[in-house]
Amino acid sequence: MTFHRAYNFCAGPATIPEVVLERVREELLNWKGRGSSFMEISHRSTDFLKLVFEPARENLKKLLNIPEDYHILFITTGTSHQFAMVPLNFLNLKPHKSADYLHTGVWSGKAINEAKRYGNINVALSTENNRFTKMCSPNELKLDSNASYLHYTPNETIHGFQFHTIPETHNVPIIADMSSEILSRPIEVSRYGMIYAGTQKNIGPSGLTIAIIHKNMAGFANALTPTLYQYQTYIDSGSLYHTPNTFGIYMAGCIFEWLLNLGGISEIAKINQRKSQKLYDAIDHSSFYRNPVQKEFRSQMNVIYYLPTVELDQLFVKEAQNNHLINLKGHKSIGGIRASIYNAMPEKGVDVLIEFMQEFERKYG
Amino acid sequence: MTFHRAYNFCAGPATIPEVVLERVREELLNWKGRGSSFMEISHRSTDFLKLVFEPARENLKKLLNIPEDYHILFITTGTSHQFAMVPLNFLNLKPHKSADYLHTGVWSGKAINEAKRYGNINVALSTENNRFTKMCSPNELKLDSNASYLHYTPNETIHGFQFHTIPETHNVPIIADMSSEILSRPIEVSRYGMIYAGTQKNIGPSGLTIAIIHKNMAGFANALTPTLYQYQTYIDSGSLYHTPNTFGIYMAGCIFEWLLNLGGISEIAKINQRKSQKLYDAIDHSSFYRNPVQKEFRSQMNVIYYLPTVELDQLFVKEAQNNHLINLKGHKSIGGIRASIYNAMPEKGVDVLIEFMQEFERKYG
Repeated sequence: MTFHRAYNFCAGPATIPEVVLERVREELLNWKGRGSSFMEISHRSTDFLKLVFEPARENLKKLLNIPEDYHILFITTGTSHQFAMVPLNFLNLKPHKSADYLHTGVWSGKAINEAKRYGNINVALSTENNRFTKMCSPNELKLDSNASYLHYTPNETIHGFQFHTIPETHNVPIIADMSSEILSRPIEVSRYGMIYAGTQKNIGPSGLTIAIIHKNMAGFANALTPTLYQYQTYIDSGSLYHTPNTFGIYMAGCIFEWLLNLGGISEIAKINQRKSQKLYDAIDHSSFYRNPVQKEFRSQMNVIYYLPTVELDQLFVKEAQNNHLINLKGHKSIGGIRASIYNAMPEKGVDVLIEFMQEFERKYG
Repeated sequence: MTFHRAYNFCAGPATIPEVVLERVREELLNWKGRGSSFMEISHRSTDFLKLVFEPARENLKKLLNIPEDYHILFITTGTSHQFAMVPLNFLNLKPHKSADYLHTGVWSGKAINEAKRYGNINVALSTENNRFTKMCSPNELKLDSNASYLHYTPNETIHGFQFHTIPETHNVPIIADMSSEILSRPIEVSRYGMIYAGTQKNIGPSGLTIAIIHKNMAGFANALTPTLYQYQTYIDSGSLYHTPNTFGIYMAGCIFEWLLNLGGISEIAKINQRKSQKLYDAIDHSSFYRNPVQKEFRSQMNVIYYLPTVELDQLFVKEAQNNHLINLKGHKSIGGIRASIYNAMPEKGVDVLIEFMQEFERKYG
């Protein structure tokens, strides 16, 4: 069979480990000798619960070292649904019914716009003035100690901007949209009121969101919150109030097993550190490529860079594609190049990209 | 390779045509020579739009003969989300802000319970007293001409109860939850304000809902409706406001192509008619098996029946499984046997089931 997997730098839905796809292919028509696939059985069957759902949940717990007082929820929606679910569930946590939001890019901005429909939203910092490339100074941060929660986006996929420390909120619960960084490095779950993440970057295909929520955070939803927008519903039903995205949960479970086999989060974190470091080094050691992000806030997941001209950006994307390095085009709002190097991007893919970049610079620099 | 696909009668997530699964397996690692799978690319890429999304939408339009003044929406949620979306979007259609609901089983009951949180819900008929096995007489139907809409569930999966005509509402828009019957027979789309259906029975795996909505129905959502609970959002964005369940859309597209290749809805309807008829005949010609549903309302999709004792029901399920006839256990709320014979169940599967039933009756009858 002639077969060529490209190195796929898509920001999401993102590349999936080849061994995981091979496993899916193997199990697709006749899963565990059952005569059907994993996606043709009831979500309430013992097979699904014992062989797919519970192992996925337990393995995620193990990977992220999730404390006992947190619930792990599988929510069958896109991540953007959370932008309404968060305020609907958490604004009532304190009498002021207000929340702090950090505005550090397009995604945190979308969360803010939706939240504003439901309560008093304080934008505690915005880096929009510097096009989301730099952090503001600490004294520009305007946190409210009466806030019900603080929401932020540790990694901004479009801008390649990432927090490497957790904001200090002095007992205000922190809600983090970790869609584009979950499972890429160790996290201290106990510092968060809730973490949520869409699956389409580090956990598999799109169509599922995972939430890790402290048990004291649930039960405060606004009275008119739809049943399936209440975290409490997922807690009470073990995420099985209705038929969930069973393929998505199966895929998440495969990814979790793959990570455990790799050596867990500490191991993938080292690989991610090496991958991003060598790519930023290649950019910084060249005067042809340029990354605009403040060094301490550069993303390990989404590395953006610009060539000297827009024409060269375009040519780069095209020639890269001819060399099986695909989906490198930057987001339309900021242009340039974006190499998304999530967990599933092999280190070899980054090495090949760097070689290609050097070759391209020799040719056109 | 020793390989045996069972005949899988699961009510949902349900069996998927073997040829579709084989296609998925074939395309899983390297789709159309792109070096990636269909679920590892951006939902906004030309590849996804032109080769997955738009063909899926167009083929559904063709299959159901959907008029130009209807929108086809792909919504990344489970079907149960619709139970809140429907009242939130449609109660405001008329000044009374009330709606009529038909209560003909567990699923329509769930829709009613959620809708009651948002407005005046008139249960225009309930067949709960006869355990959802019989229709009430026409004069028991209490429709309200001021209702914003009427909601009903043409096929009740658990009870094997199906409407074979559309209720007459005299200009009150009809909303139908067609999850367990969509694409199984021709429908007159223009009779409906909106049709919605989860994908996990006749369209593929779970995790996606399809809505077919008349253009005049949208834009009336309650002011605090979450952005992704508003049908208008999906209309305005072409169902791409956020990252949708791209695997689900791909699978739906594969199913639509499979149906078109088969000859379309008129052809599958004939097969479904034959499948259910021969199964009901086998039940009716035996005094060992018993179906409790009023004949004119028997479901073509979910055929339920009882053996003389609960012990025999259980033995039947177990021995059937040993004969590669799987997932025949009735819903826990009503017991007995349930054979879900959606589009993807081959006629041969029903033939084998009937043979097994006759053999079982000879042995234990």
